[in-house]
Amino acid sequence: MSDFTQKLRPGKPDGPSTLLQQRTQSNISVDELAHHLLSYDGFLDRQLRILPLLEQEPLFNKMNQANLSRIEVFKLALARAKRLRRLVDENGWDIYDYKMAETLIDDVSPYYLHMHMFVTTIKEQASDSQKSHYLPLIESFRIIGAYAQTELGHGSNVQGLELEARWDPSTKEFILHSPTLTASKWWNGSLGRIANHAIVVAQLLLPSSSGQDSSPEYASYGPHPFIVQVRDMSTHQPFDGIVIGDIGPKLGYATIDNAYMLFDNFRVPHSALLSKYCQVDYESGAYSKPATQGILYGTMTFVRSLIVHQARLALARAVTIAVRYTSIRRQFTHRDDRDGPEVSVLSYPTVQIRVLPLLATTYALHYTGLAMQETYKDTRQHVERGELHTLAHMHSMSSGLKSLCTNIVADGIETCRRALGGHGYGGASGFTRLGPDYLSRVTVEGDNWMITQQVASYLIKRMTGVVMNMDDDNHDELGQSFKLFLDMKQSKQSPIPCDIYASDRAIVDAFQQRATILTYDIYEARVLEKRPWTEIMIQLHKTSSAQSQAIIVNSFFNALNTENTLPGPTKSTLWDLYRLFAFYTMESVGYDFLRSGAISHCHVEKLASRVQELMGKIRPHAVNLVDSWKIPDFLLDSALGRYDGNVYEDLFNRAHKFNPLNQVTFNPNYWEDEIVKGISDKWSSQLAKL
Amino acid sequence: MSDFTQKLRPGKPDGPSTLLQQRTQSNISVDELAHHLLSYDGFLDRQLRILPLLEQEPLFNKMNQANLSRIEVFKLALARAKRLRRLVDENGWDIYDYKMAETLIDDVSPYYLHMHMFVTTIKEQASDSQKSHYLPLIESFRIIGAYAQTELGHGSNVQGLELEARWDPSTKEFILHSPTLTASKWWNGSLGRIANHAIVVAQLLLPSSSGQDSSPEYASYGPHPFIVQVRDMSTHQPFDGIVIGDIGPKLGYATIDNAYMLFDNFRVPHSALLSKYCQVDYESGAYSKPATQGILYGTMTFVRSLIVHQARLALARAVTIAVRYTSIRRQFTHRDDRDGPEVSVLSYPTVQIRVLPLLATTYALHYTGLAMQETYKDTRQHVERGELHTLAHMHSMSSGLKSLCTNIVADGIETCRRALGGHGYGGASGFTRLGPDYLSRVTVEGDNWMITQQVASYLIKRMTGVVMNMDDDNHDELGQSFKLFLDMKQSKQSPIPCDIYASDRAIVDAFQQRATILTYDIYEARVLEKRPWTEIMIQLHKTSSAQSQAIIVNSFFNALNTENTLPGPTKSTLWDLYRLFAFYTMESVGYDFLRSGAISHCHVEKLASRVQELMGKIRPHAVNLVDSWKIPDFLLDSALGRYDGNVYEDLFNRAHKFNPLNQVTFNPNYWEDEIVKGISDKWSSQLAKL
Repeated sequence: MSDFTQKLRPGKPDGPSTLLQQRTQSNISVDELAHHLLSYDGFLDRQLRILPLLEQEPLFNKMNQANLSRIEVFKLALARAKRLRRLVDENGWDIYDYKMAETLIDDVSPYYLHMHMFVTTIKEQASDSQKSHYLPLIESFRIIGAYAQTELGHGSNVQGLELEARWDPSTKEFILHSPTLTASKWWNGSLGRIANHAIVVAQLLLPSSSGQDSSPEYASYGPHPFIVQVRDMSTHQPFDGIVIGDIGPKLGYATIDNAYMLFDNFRVPHSALLSKYCQVDYESGAYSKPATQGILYGTMTFVRSLIVHQARLALARAVTIAVRYTSIRRQFTHRDDRDGPEVSVLSYPTVQIRVLPLLATTYALHYTGLAMQETYKDTRQHVERGELHTLAHMHSMSSGLKSLCTNIVADGIETCRRALGGHGYGGASGFTRLGPDYLSRVTVEGDNWMITQQVASYLIKRMTGVVMNMDDDNHDELGQSFKLFLDMKQSKQSPIPCDIYASDRAIVDAFQQRATILTYDIYEARVLEKRPWTEIMIQLHKTSSAQSQAIIVNSFFNALNTENTLPGPTKSTLWDLYRLFAFYTMESVGYDFLRSGAISHCHVEKLASRVQELMGKIRPHAVNLVDSWKIPDFLLDSALGRYDGNVYEDLFNRAHKFNPLNQVTFNPNYWEDEIVKGISDKWSSQLAKL
Repeated sequence: MSDFTQKLRPGKPDGPSTLLQQRTQSNISVDELAHHLLSYDGFLDRQLRILPLLEQEPLFNKMNQANLSRIEVFKLALARAKRLRRLVDENGWDIYDYKMAETLIDDVSPYYLHMHMFVTTIKEQASDSQKSHYLPLIESFRIIGAYAQTELGHGSNVQGLELEARWDPSTKEFILHSPTLTASKWWNGSLGRIANHAIVVAQLLLPSSSGQDSSPEYASYGPHPFIVQVRDMSTHQPFDGIVIGDIGPKLGYATIDNAYMLFDNFRVPHSALLSKYCQVDYESGAYSKPATQGILYGTMTFVRSLIVHQARLALARAVTIAVRYTSIRRQFTHRDDRDGPEVSVLSYPTVQIRVLPLLATTYALHYTGLAMQETYKDTRQHVERGELHTLAHMHSMSSGLKSLCTNIVADGIETCRRALGGHGYGGASGFTRLGPDYLSRVTVEGDNWMITQQVASYLIKRMTGVVMNMDDDNHDELGQSFKLFLDMKQSKQSPIPCDIYASDRAIVDAFQQRATILTYDIYEARVLEKRPWTEIMIQLHKTSSAQSQAIIVNSFFNALNTENTLPGPTKSTLWDLYRLFAFYTMESVGYDFLRSGAISHCHVEKLASRVQELMGKIRPHAVNLVDSWKIPDFLLDSALGRYDGNVYEDLFNRAHKFNPLNQVTFNPNYWEDEIVKGISDKWSSQLAKL
């Protein structure tokens, strides 16, 4: 049968001509803006260098992965991970090259935890002799490791972990034991099928009587990390006394083997306890611990700040697809011009209001991510000099931003997807892996609702300090804002509304003013009225979000205010994006700003029209603004978001040429057992049996 | 190796004892409440009767479906669909029995469109002779049909469809032809691999000169439905001149074969045009059309009102899981009682604020669904008597509620999932099919942002009528509200804020007052200021949402206000749910209510604390309130939401006993090509080639 579809072309105007028109009519210089955004750390050069190497490998082709079974997906992921590790050897890649390739391949690799949490924990918590033993084995992949902390019954509350590590003074061993089912390790990536070693976090139990007793009493010293070989190196089976497996299918992350693991009185040597900071004396069994707990924030804060920095690119991926496709997609004529051409759906304000504030958000998150990285680096330098006073600030900032930014991005990805209409639900949208995978971020590394308590604690402590004139850090912006507020409060002045339409700096002030007032409210509730912590939790969460929003707006403003190399028109559009992000955010919590006196009634009234006006100004530049993120088609994996705009041809090819279901002819007659025509398979025979 | 995990039990207190304690301490009578909610149409009896028949069939076991490839999922779905259809014959089931079974099995069946849109369209749009030919074939499944309207390039804008049906007066045939690639039918369920017939919607083209000409001019009469046999009944291959296939993997809906379909000058007979309302004369080619277009709203309005009614059970499924699991899950002690037991996470206000307003929403949507069904029935009766004046109201109500309710439920399902923490991301959560499948609802049967324009049009028309004293329907509540508003406006009175904390009826008034003011604003913008429709689209959408919220609150209030059989404590808790839904909704759009004058500043201020207080009152009844939805474990398919509370045993069993990935031992060494130990498979050999 001849295939008459070969000669068909999409209706006019087509995608390529639409995007060309959009690209040429904007005066935003994509290459200059991309350089401004992404030249940091050689990101763009690295992407350019690595991408072609990946595109030429058939294993990394993404076309049919959505059709595979879980087992096949996992096999493919392991084959890809091996190939990727070989590319490191072949090309002499450094760790940044490796991570770039990992990002572009877009699998959460079966080696993921080995290359991230496992090696990081060894580096940060192992003693020098442990490091010299393990690091060469890790770097050469002679051992593969994972990180096993979370349990079936305990995630957020690390102190509540049930797995025990009991010191046996007679044999000088720790006995790992799971006393209950809920003590099973759970969720531990790379461990279910792949790793042969793991960092195992367990409650350290030491004899409280001196040890000569036949059944000594034990006291708990809290969760501690141990390094444990869990599988035989030749058979790859777990040792006797250990049960391990993969926990099964999940919402996303099909390419990684999240584990369960239980121990039955499994013995590990004294050297298993990672002992840079905590030691159990080999002879006496005596415990010694670090001078300050602050140092242990290290890894967690690093990971949170990294998540904040990565957030913008996940959202940029979604927004790139949304802007390009909604520029190309046309539907309906204007109601007031029925005979005109069909309109690009991005020209409808009801599409703009979903996509363009998120476009602005990619930029807001970019500058926030940079500010977060800077704060992290500064604090590390302080800590290395023994100055710990900025640790709490960094911890609070990373927790609050992790919570807020990952919420914004997870929700934003879905908002973009819905803005694509029906094709957004299809597998060629580029969202079927991005969306579910990203949703893990709102829970991992501290649940987004839980960790805002840490921000609120910090804010209450700072406010208390300022009230009592005992705040060491009141030279920083937060302290100054609190002080200003308290001074005005003392002199019974009302807050002065910020003139947000007259000055871009006034927008920053409005956000901080609102956050400060909310902080005072929780300080009052908790410190002055002594209300139970649990009772005010919703307010605590809200205050953390408000402070994090203030940080984002402040970071965006500071970055633009100090930037002086971008061409005028580009710069001017970035300011519009700043205003759009701020006003859109304000409008979504309108009453809150009004109530705090940060802006006036008449300013609130105008927010919606200002947002719409800004969207009108940004619309002509939308395609160039997403192009500037330079996200390659290989990563987008989207018929809708392709750089060249050949949306409909690509959708059709994926369905018509590459869909394996179309190779199968079915028998639709319900009275016949046959499922596939001419073939008797397991479902036919199951049906026949009934 | 002995499996020591057999003897392990979860830590105390366990799930069953927690749920037992929750169930006994509440004075809500689950069976009475369930009867009140679900006895309508014999729903509960039907569920009780059908469920055991499904539970005993191995084909309907859901345990391993998430591990299958797309092709296997589809084969299984077809086997299940055949078995289900045989159960109809074996048990003499009616259509409601069939649909109940379909819901419980929870596949979108490959026969779905045959049993829904295909048969409905034949019933509603076929002539009597077409019906008498096709209906017996459809009911006996001798033919399988689908509904092909949407195209690659056009979904919402049905008038823009590109497929042509050109009348050839010489042969008395219609020629179906796809002039472009974007004219390809797309998304048409059941058609990709299964159906042999389809309703095909195409632009009807008739010769505009009288037909003796050799190349006559054609005029378009808009989209019309044709019934077309598309596949050979014995080979099940498409006919020459037709290309059909499945469009490939999607976000959800893996069990159904959404199609693409193109025609190359394919000829169908005169009888193909469904001709109850529209006819092309066989001899003359003359066209005749229905007296009123209103009649064609029928199917669409019916489907939208059905979606509104179904929304509550989709959300109830999510909320049932969330309430049960967050009652069982314990994490942390209270900060003010560090030595106390770990707290059920549902006792934290930060969990309550996500779950309990949605619990209230299930009830709000229930009464709204009933009101929608009543309105639909009334209107049908009017229409059958030739009275068409309530059609526009019903169309507006069903469009506005479809948009709002499916948004609430789609977002609510995800909110519940996130409230489950890490385990919410796992495959045993019960959300991995529910969430992605439900997301289709925000787009199908009219995109949720697009169709609110239809509501706004209606509201503007009604307001214009009332302003001009020409509103025929001003005896209804909407007309009265508009009239009251205009009277006060004329006499220059300010709106009187509603005393929402003193009277439950005042809450209804507040919602309607706000919606009325927003309606006046869009009337003013469009009718008085003559602003372009496109420019005010965001306001139109907002106004539709406000009016739909008013309908929900009104329906909830009316239902409780007229109900008089439920026991006092149950009734009293339902009123608390009503208030919680209303105040939570108000708080989320606080400024809007304030601005409209519907409630006062000091009322807005108290919303948050009233919401928290109501949540505290509802918390002890939460388990019984979800139990009353009587959603069986078979449908929930959730380790977290099981009725018996054995959460951790079930999670562990699914991973340890039923996960096929754990039958495979992998080789983790990157320098070796082997993927599975001892086996050379396709990924090993692909890797070796590189």
